[in-house]
Amino acid sequence: MAHGAGGTASRRLVERCLPHLGGTALAELGDAGLVERAAGARVGAAPLVLTTDAFVVRPLRFGGGSIGSLAVHGTLNDLAAAGARPLALTASFVLEEGLELATFEAEVAALGEAARRCDVEVVAADTKVVERGHADGLFIATTGLGAVVARPAPSPRRMAPGDRVLVSGPVADHGIAVLLARGELHLDAEVHSDSASLWPAAEALIEACGPGLRTMRDATRGGVATVLCELAGAAGLEVELDEAAVPLRGPTRGACELLGLDPLYVANEGCLVAVVAAASADAALAALHATEVGREAAVVGEVTAGDRGRVVGRTAFGGRRVLDLLAGDPLPRIC
Amino acid sequence: MAHGAGGTASRRLVERCLPHLGGTALAELGDAGLVERAAGARVGAAPLVLTTDAFVVRPLRFGGGSIGSLAVHGTLNDLAAAGARPLALTASFVLEEGLELATFEAEVAALGEAARRCDVEVVAADTKVVERGHADGLFIATTGLGAVVARPAPSPRRMAPGDRVLVSGPVADHGIAVLLARGELHLDAEVHSDSASLWPAAEALIEACGPGLRTMRDATRGGVATVLCELAGAAGLEVELDEAAVPLRGPTRGACELLGLDPLYVANEGCLVAVVAAASADAALAALHATEVGREAAVVGEVTAGDRGRVVGRTAFGGRRVLDLLAGDPLPRIC
Repeated sequence: MAHGAGGTASRRLVERCLPHLGGTALAELGDAGLVERAAGARVGAAPLVLTTDAFVVRPLRFGGGSIGSLAVHGTLNDLAAAGARPLALTASFVLEEGLELATFEAEVAALGEAARRCDVEVVAADTKVVERGHADGLFIATTGLGAVVARPAPSPRRMAPGDRVLVSGPVADHGIAVLLARGELHLDAEVHSDSASLWPAAEALIEACGPGLRTMRDATRGGVATVLCELAGAAGLEVELDEAAVPLRGPTRGACELLGLDPLYVANEGCLVAVVAAASADAALAALHATEVGREAAVVGEVTAGDRGRVVGRTAFGGRRVLDLLAGDPLPRIC
Repeated sequence: MAHGAGGTASRRLVERCLPHLGGTALAELGDAGLVERAAGARVGAAPLVLTTDAFVVRPLRFGGGSIGSLAVHGTLNDLAAAGARPLALTASFVLEEGLELATFEAEVAALGEAARRCDVEVVAADTKVVERGHADGLFIATTGLGAVVARPAPSPRRMAPGDRVLVSGPVADHGIAVLLARGELHLDAEVHSDSASLWPAAEALIEACGPGLRTMRDATRGGVATVLCELAGAAGLEVELDEAAVPLRGPTRGACELLGLDPLYVANEGCLVAVVAAASADAALAALHATEVGREAAVVGEVTAGDRGRVVGRTAFGGRRVLDLLAGDPLPRIC
């Protein structure tokens, strides 16, 4: 508990873990971190956006990632979907008394490493400790500051009939990887989370499509289907989804079938849904394919003037079904 | 649990609680909120700072405040201490399954109300839910974006021998108010938390002192003594504290004496420690006295060229003692 009291034990903890986060702003140990001037200079007068997320994933580590890297990717991906280049990141940690110091340090290191790979500085951090049984190991909340470089700013209100819908890669890997890591299923599938930064994909789309890029979202909780419902609702248009065109890896498909889960509703942490003008679709697809995270991108649907806010899936067998917002919580604590 | 799944229950929760936070950026329900243009225009080319804090105070409500308002004041006060005018705020919530919806809504409302009073917009928010027993009711993490308007930027490295140390008001009220709210002490004292925004006090000091303002800190966990130790350490100078000059309300003094707590180490949530040039001390004190939060401000000490990093307290009885960083955690979960 003393590690959360703000005194000598807190200071030792901070001094031990701080080097993992790097950064000159944090190293000053003040309570507020200067946003890197270089980042500001890169951006000029672009509008600033903030986004925040709490991460409570259980277990802390899973195939393809852990809470530390997830806390970076999840927040940067909300910036990316807003068409915003990341400028700076903050992280606050809630630790449960009794958490192994090595476990905490490993996650701080994972967070710092992910931030460095994404070329963004962690400029402020905070740690609190609660008594045993009053939290679950470790929660992390991150906040990202970004500058909107997409012109015009992406918005579902810019969607129009005829626009195409793309996804940047295979769906459902993250949810299934976390579920398997819980070890309750005795299922031995090779599934790795897609946890990754989507900024390279978003930047490629911004450059390739210009104003042909209508809107973007990262398909986290609720999956691709829920995100499409939200976009269709905000646009007041219908989205027709070609379900067979949605990329899905074999082991993930198998696990979903065994578990009775619809992969379109399973959470992703590195899957961008983008809506682009029909004339931009080929350029968008080529641009995504040229990025690491978008190698398996696909055109999966089309915006129509049908029912306001409805999403219709064309199934592999030629049927049609209406896809609604996720109801209930099939996979709790997934991020 | 479904309230955290990102589907229909999440949406109902957000739509119920969102109006409390106000703000046009949040109302768009995207994942990243635009930092208000008006705020940007107010600030010009001032350097940006970010700060973040997690709040795990127990109980959620206490005399003079609650976790919702505390989560605003605590983060804005870190900006204020950096000499930064607040521009925007984000909030992420971790809820324990079973938390009364009315309790959650009351705290979202308290957070929104405190933000409005402080003239800062909540531009992004997030909610996660964990199973019963895996959190303690409600945790909130807030992040503040600010623009440093103090010139030069406050820093302990600007401290010099002869500088004066001021506090903006009575100490130890917050820690004692939270302790009393736990109801374990059967002590009936009228103590209210000092939870409040320190930006009006910081702004008054910036205007009154100009470059005579050396550095500021808000004295939260570890209290005034720990903050002075950190400042003395960062400056490589000694601080001499006149303990009898530190404002302390009667009921708080009484509770501290009964409980064997040193009020200099008890947490505050609306107490600014400022170091100013000797020539600016009178102007600084007058400026603080003209603010609501600084009505009882006092000059409490002086910077000397004595031992590097040492803080010496002159007690009311004429004795001298060395004050060190807080050790251990006398009052856990105080913020």
